[in-house]
Amino acid sequence: MTGINETHDPKLRSFVDSANAPDTDFPIHNLPFGVFRTAKMDVPRVGIAIGDRILDVAGLSALSGPAQTAAKACAAPHLNDLMAAGPDAWSALRLQVSRLLRSDSKDRAAAEKHLVAMADAELLLPAKIGNFTDFFASVFHATNAGRMFRPDNPLLPNYKYVPVAYHSRASSIRVSGTTVRRPRGQIKLPNEAVPIFAPCRNLDYELELGFYVGVPSDLGQPVPIDQAGEHIFGFCLLNDWSARDIQAWEYQPLGPFLAKNFATTVSPWVVTAEALAPYRTTAYARPQGDPAPLPYLASDADQAGGGLDIMMEAYLLTDAMRTQKQAPFRLSRGSFASTYWTVAQMLTHHTSNGCNLEIGDLVASGTVSGPDKDSLGSLLELTLRGTEPVQLPGGETRGFIADGDEIIFRGSCEAKGFARIGFGECRAVVLPAI
Amino acid sequence: MTGINETHDPKLRSFVDSANAPDTDFPIHNLPFGVFRTAKMDVPRVGIAIGDRILDVAGLSALSGPAQTAAKACAAPHLNDLMAAGPDAWSALRLQVSRLLRSDSKDRAAAEKHLVAMADAELLLPAKIGNFTDFFASVFHATNAGRMFRPDNPLLPNYKYVPVAYHSRASSIRVSGTTVRRPRGQIKLPNEAVPIFAPCRNLDYELELGFYVGVPSDLGQPVPIDQAGEHIFGFCLLNDWSARDIQAWEYQPLGPFLAKNFATTVSPWVVTAEALAPYRTTAYARPQGDPAPLPYLASDADQAGGGLDIMMEAYLLTDAMRTQKQAPFRLSRGSFASTYWTVAQMLTHHTSNGCNLEIGDLVASGTVSGPDKDSLGSLLELTLRGTEPVQLPGGETRGFIADGDEIIFRGSCEAKGFARIGFGECRAVVLPAI
Repeated sequence: MTGINETHDPKLRSFVDSANAPDTDFPIHNLPFGVFRTAKMDVPRVGIAIGDRILDVAGLSALSGPAQTAAKACAAPHLNDLMAAGPDAWSALRLQVSRLLRSDSKDRAAAEKHLVAMADAELLLPAKIGNFTDFFASVFHATNAGRMFRPDNPLLPNYKYVPVAYHSRASSIRVSGTTVRRPRGQIKLPNEAVPIFAPCRNLDYELELGFYVGVPSDLGQPVPIDQAGEHIFGFCLLNDWSARDIQAWEYQPLGPFLAKNFATTVSPWVVTAEALAPYRTTAYARPQGDPAPLPYLASDADQAGGGLDIMMEAYLLTDAMRTQKQAPFRLSRGSFASTYWTVAQMLTHHTSNGCNLEIGDLVASGTVSGPDKDSLGSLLELTLRGTEPVQLPGGETRGFIADGDEIIFRGSCEAKGFARIGFGECRAVVLPAI
Repeated sequence: MTGINETHDPKLRSFVDSANAPDTDFPIHNLPFGVFRTAKMDVPRVGIAIGDRILDVAGLSALSGPAQTAAKACAAPHLNDLMAAGPDAWSALRLQVSRLLRSDSKDRAAAEKHLVAMADAELLLPAKIGNFTDFFASVFHATNAGRMFRPDNPLLPNYKYVPVAYHSRASSIRVSGTTVRRPRGQIKLPNEAVPIFAPCRNLDYELELGFYVGVPSDLGQPVPIDQAGEHIFGFCLLNDWSARDIQAWEYQPLGPFLAKNFATTVSPWVVTAEALAPYRTTAYARPQGDPAPLPYLASDADQAGGGLDIMMEAYLLTDAMRTQKQAPFRLSRGSFASTYWTVAQMLTHHTSNGCNLEIGDLVASGTVSGPDKDSLGSLLELTLRGTEPVQLPGGETRGFIADGDEIIFRGSCEAKGFARIGFGECRAVVLPAI
């Protein structure tokens, strides 16, 4: 992490016009990594998003030093080789690509040969993900979910000490745009003695932020909190699809299993930790009166800017809305900075017992819900378990997700004196159960 | 699975003398796969255990057809390529290797060139494990563990319907012989308001059976119960090390996390499903009066022989016992067949929501505890959470595991009219916390 440097200068412009549009997610200040394929390519490669184009990094000859090493690693069909090149190489590549794509680029002609229209490309799962961990970092989500089970005592006693998490399923992670099949499972109806095995009736999304581990850690070696950030390659949007009725029956005593592992959707573009550096905030500090984090989770540096002010939004597009060419309806909007635990605390807690991290591991935040009614990151919370359905503009209502519904996540960052950057979309249509 | 065939003939003898000893785990009827390396080898390869030798399969020239294809896949430093060759290839290789190693082998001289002393070899983690799932299949363990939290209602209402499971950590799985570092973690002492962060005080083992997925399944495609067995490559012993004090504080509401993911130990030899075919049993049928499995988990074939009669044993060897050259002390002994759910039910349940399985995935049973006092597969149960310590012959006692203790698992199968086969050992010494 070089922190805030010349790549964040808000006056920078790219010779790629679309990258200068005020509402683009991918201005020259962002430069996220992804994996793409066009009809002309035999094997997918790593690219960098710039406006509505993708820079095909592996073929660039105008790079030097660690940036060149990093670019060679971009010939792989996943980000893992680039991750393995290390933070200095990521940073050098980002800086040289920024210079290459600016309006005053000395190598514009050379760079233009390596630009591909994003519309002509298929975006793929960006990493080989060995391990997938999901946290429970939003105290608002934990309280809202807990209230449905324990009205008098919604937040469990461990919550403000332990960054609670569970392992989820790596094999069923798919990139944005891949359809999701409604799962079947055991459901225990309130007035029946025996569960049924049937299609999920209470299908939900969870609006989450994910991050990829770029620098591994050894088994038995905890990562100190002040070094946690150095292990993170970048961030994505993540939908932790959840079958609430299956979850309610199966989850005791070992936690969610089939309610979650049928699908997880991630956005294709990975926004680097460096690109996010200007959007750190202390706006949501730990409330007065709450216990201090235990020493292994406490860091002056992390507390002073551990919150990432990423505005996260969830949208719904139903079959009927699609037919009528309506725009997606926004279900919620809230900042990731409102989570109780920072990503550094999540990573350090994860390794505090000696658990090792591998290159490409994916760690997610858990549902990002804020304090307000319009910042709730799941239908479970928005509709109070389906009892107060969402009213859609066309007259439809939703307690939970219907077949044909598409759930769309967007994320963006703004800060005074800096350009706006975004995450692109994380979206998927739900298909009926088999 | 060709089922019981000529490779199980109890009259078979090998020209490898040690394979004919009555107490060997690796007679010619077993032929488990593992990954090994000797000082002369640059890269590890797949081998087959026979008595006190390892057959270096990849170099064999005396094979033909699918067995030859399978042998070529044994040049890899993991079993995944062999798994990908498919069940017919596994079976063909096992049959031809059986013929090659018999007393009346036509190719004895050629085979002898490819035998390595196991004592000269390092045994490695046998597979690239993408996903690791742990079940809770022993009703005795579930009842014993539940009783400590809920004396009046030990077994949760879902237990006899849902094969409960959780995802555990793939990155920290290590092969037998690798030391295990005692974890640190948050511990909430009974009379303290705030948790401490300290070395685990209640370190435990869990005696488990594991199985490797050899044939993958597609996302969205459940595996019917009568096809579940076809997806299993083979079985191992597995120690799901557990930090009970960390677990008690962290596990609500999402299940165990840091209490488990610091280490899992597996035995190096993978006993094939085919080798285990003669040891199926109905001795522990679902008790009268219990609910029938839901239809997707019910199978006449599975019920008629889904229980695997694997005698599983846990031993303890303390520092003091090692110094005094004492033999390991047996803590427990019980049959895997006593579990409530069969491996076919576990695999089918796992995919019943469409969750996909990948080659090399590891699935474990959960602690195998039987109905008797001497068949309890964890110290939590054996010592009633440390309150009734185990008395060791030399005068030592153990409520939980002490630094320097080695936990050793053994497993073996016997059935009338068949040879005895075994799993080798799964063992590891616990080191002090950093």
